Amino acid sequence: MNQAQLDDLIAYLRFPSVSTDSRHAGDMKACADWLRGKMAEQGLDAEIRETGGHPAVVGKNEHRAGRPTVMIYGHYDVQPADPLELWASPPFEPRIDGDKIYARGATDNKGQNLAHVLGLGEELAAAGDLPVNVTVLVEGEEEIGSPNLAGFLEANKEELACDVIAVSDTGMLAPGMGTFTYGLRGIACTELRVKGPSMDLHSGVFGGTVANPATAVARIVASLHDGEGRIAVEGFYDKVAPLQDWEREAWASLPVHEAETLGLTGAPELFGEAGFSDAERRWARPTAEVNGIGGGYQGEGSKTVIPAEAFAKLSFRLVPDQDPAEVIDLVRRHVERHTPAGVTVECVPGHSGPAYVMDPQSGYGKAAQAALRATFSGEPALIREGGSIPIVQTFKDVLGADTLLLGLALPDCQIHAPNENFSLENYFGGIRLNRELLRAIAAG
Amino acid sequence: MNQAQLDDLIAYLRFPSVSTDSRHAGDMKACADWLRGKMAEQGLDAEIRETGGHPAVVGKNEHRAGRPTVMIYGHYDVQPADPLELWASPPFEPRIDGDKIYARGATDNKGQNLAHVLGLGEELAAAGDLPVNVTVLVEGEEEIGSPNLAGFLEANKEELACDVIAVSDTGMLAPGMGTFTYGLRGIACTELRVKGPSMDLHSGVFGGTVANPATAVARIVASLHDGEGRIAVEGFYDKVAPLQDWEREAWASLPVHEAETLGLTGAPELFGEAGFSDAERRWARPTAEVNGIGGGYQGEGSKTVIPAEAFAKLSFRLVPDQDPAEVIDLVRRHVERHTPAGVTVECVPGHSGPAYVMDPQSGYGKAAQAALRATFSGEPALIREGGSIPIVQTFKDVLGADTLLLGLALPDCQIHAPNENFSLENYFGGIRLNRELLRAIAAG
Repeated sequence: MNQAQLDDLIAYLRFPSVSTDSRHAGDMKACADWLRGKMAEQGLDAEIRETGGHPAVVGKNEHRAGRPTVMIYGHYDVQPADPLELWASPPFEPRIDGDKIYARGATDNKGQNLAHVLGLGEELAAAGDLPVNVTVLVEGEEEIGSPNLAGFLEANKEELACDVIAVSDTGMLAPGMGTFTYGLRGIACTELRVKGPSMDLHSGVFGGTVANPATAVARIVASLHDGEGRIAVEGFYDKVAPLQDWEREAWASLPVHEAETLGLTGAPELFGEAGFSDAERRWARPTAEVNGIGGGYQGEGSKTVIPAEAFAKLSFRLVPDQDPAEVIDLVRRHVERHTPAGVTVECVPGHSGPAYVMDPQSGYGKAAQAALRATFSGEPALIREGGSIPIVQTFKDVLGADTLLLGLALPDCQIHAPNENFSLENYFGGIRLNRELLRAIAAG
Repeated sequence: MNQAQLDDLIAYLRFPSVSTDSRHAGDMKACADWLRGKMAEQGLDAEIRETGGHPAVVGKNEHRAGRPTVMIYGHYDVQPADPLELWASPPFEPRIDGDKIYARGATDNKGQNLAHVLGLGEELAAAGDLPVNVTVLVEGEEEIGSPNLAGFLEANKEELACDVIAVSDTGMLAPGMGTFTYGLRGIACTELRVKGPSMDLHSGVFGGTVANPATAVARIVASLHDGEGRIAVEGFYDKVAPLQDWEREAWASLPVHEAETLGLTGAPELFGEAGFSDAERRWARPTAEVNGIGGGYQGEGSKTVIPAEAFAKLSFRLVPDQDPAEVIDLVRRHVERHTPAGVTVECVPGHSGPAYVMDPQSGYGKAAQAALRATFSGEPALIREGGSIPIVQTFKDVLGADTLLLGLALPDCQIHAPNENFSLENYFGGIRLNRELLRAIAAG
């Protein structure tokens, strides 16, 4: 263990860099300044860059023609620490207990991006140079949805041009198990707004002769699936790329167990599309979920009305090669076909983004695997994740480059929750991983 | 038009006797005192009676053996007048415009119960006696659910014993059309509480592998009806008494038109059980309604969660001879059979009461029809109503007597709303109706 590197992490974690809270604007600035200084100390040419919102910090080695350019992305902003009373120690006074360091931002994302920065410093100190061109981009607005990232990339497109991006901001399946996330699900959101009578009606006076919008929204939602959990929207699966044999085989041997999912969710039992495993259903099969449903009386007890309207907020998780706009269109047509008599339904589209997948056996994919293999014991796990990481698509859209997701977050790291922590083993592992990754890319 | 009778109505309507608002406790008392005095002035033996809540006013003529005893029920409490700004004139400063008097409580129920009291006074003045024994009971808690009525009846069961009860607190189909309501629907309420995961889950991370309680509640609700609006709960219709031929014929000729229902509800079209008319569906067929449905994110935009739970508040309007407890039991069994995998459902029973129906061709029913025929031009309309009036069942349970519902409320009377009004023609008609009713009962 390198005490100086540990001290650096402690110093970084002391900044309450909460991007969403304007009272912390000064802390954001101070944190960015500190990071710029740290990058410079490691031997990078580092600058604070204005974005229109919280500043970004950009650091580079000397870029030379004839070798690949790697962008390393991270974020120095953190989630708010509330509720404070649930923390065992103050969130911005880092505490080490056993192999873990506890502080807001420890895993998400300061510990992980600082490991990369210090890895660059180690390599520069040891070899006098890096094996590739590197641009480190650490932004300050990830926790508020990166509102200025696309604009910043666009405005500095030539300067930030790169061949591949490396991000450590995802999960590791188990301690010591290097994990390469090569795919993410996309998303398409829409809200159904069902309208019936022009006001809430007395269900005694009018019940039986007008359609009830709450019943109607339920009938439409019920029509989205068959009884076996398969989505019943006509054409929904037409463009779904089947899971490949190697994926099914590889995932079957991973330490992803139904019992663990049951424990994490507290659900009475697992339920999903027949014919697929827990991991397959979460990582590589599309879904239709109701994120919110409502209509009529919401208070205690009863109020015997026929509500004037009801809604369902739907989101569809997408997989390659589904197109979000096409899916929303299929859903709209399905809803039109399944709208009961006596009501009208409007489909209001929400945000969307396609699924992301890269070939883990591509050159960069193999480099990522090699780096993980050299850093951690055993074969790296090749997984996809069920969520969506919008920045990955932003990078693809603006810079045209794939992203290597090499996560160092452990399942019990408590990101976004009290007592967030980061494994020191993974912190020092992350420093090694950075050096291995750049070497592997250079060798590729 | 009798100016003294009109002045009495104006005086009665000036009391802001809002039972739900403790700031009006003094007004309630003053209103009850005024009414007691008015009953005494008409020649009744009248008393303020404590009930445990707002007092009731009870007035009687001299009861003699050998003739029927008729209870006349009404209430002197009124709904709150809010929102005040929507009133064209202050709600407790009665205003006459054309044939209508505008004030809170004008139709519901002061105008209607005062008409009965003044009818008794006219008859006593003209004939020196009433043709039957009469007990007038005007309570002060109807608008808050009559919490002390059953106890008051029970405690004074012998004193209040009667053969039949007359209530003017329902609707008249059209101006000048005497309307006898001989049936009401019952009700049975239950709330479905669907539980899945122990907390809201990230729909990206876990979507596809756990059941979604909002989807589950929608599937259960959707299972309650078939596509033609018929209730699909096994056994639900087993005890439903069929509509009688004379009812279907009589109702078909009433001025109850689908166009009017469309106008009143603002629904895009009418929808209900196939094979029945608008009136039949509202008055004499049972329903399954969702009064409220909810679960997950309720705010603007989207939040991509799988909710931990969802609910549906259900109410079933019942008709003779359905038993509320049996219906709730059938529903619970139906829900058990239709609960999707991966969730648990609890059925929490709510309030309930059976349907009410009396034979309009019984002796009292014929007397009611005769009185309406003598008071208004033309044949009275014989109808049922779709709502439930709990006091009717309370009277049946405690006193064992049927209730004659002889409503004087016009469709545009705005009860419970701003600009409540009462037709003066119906006010003076109500005075005549009272005298005709007592004579018809005595003659029966």
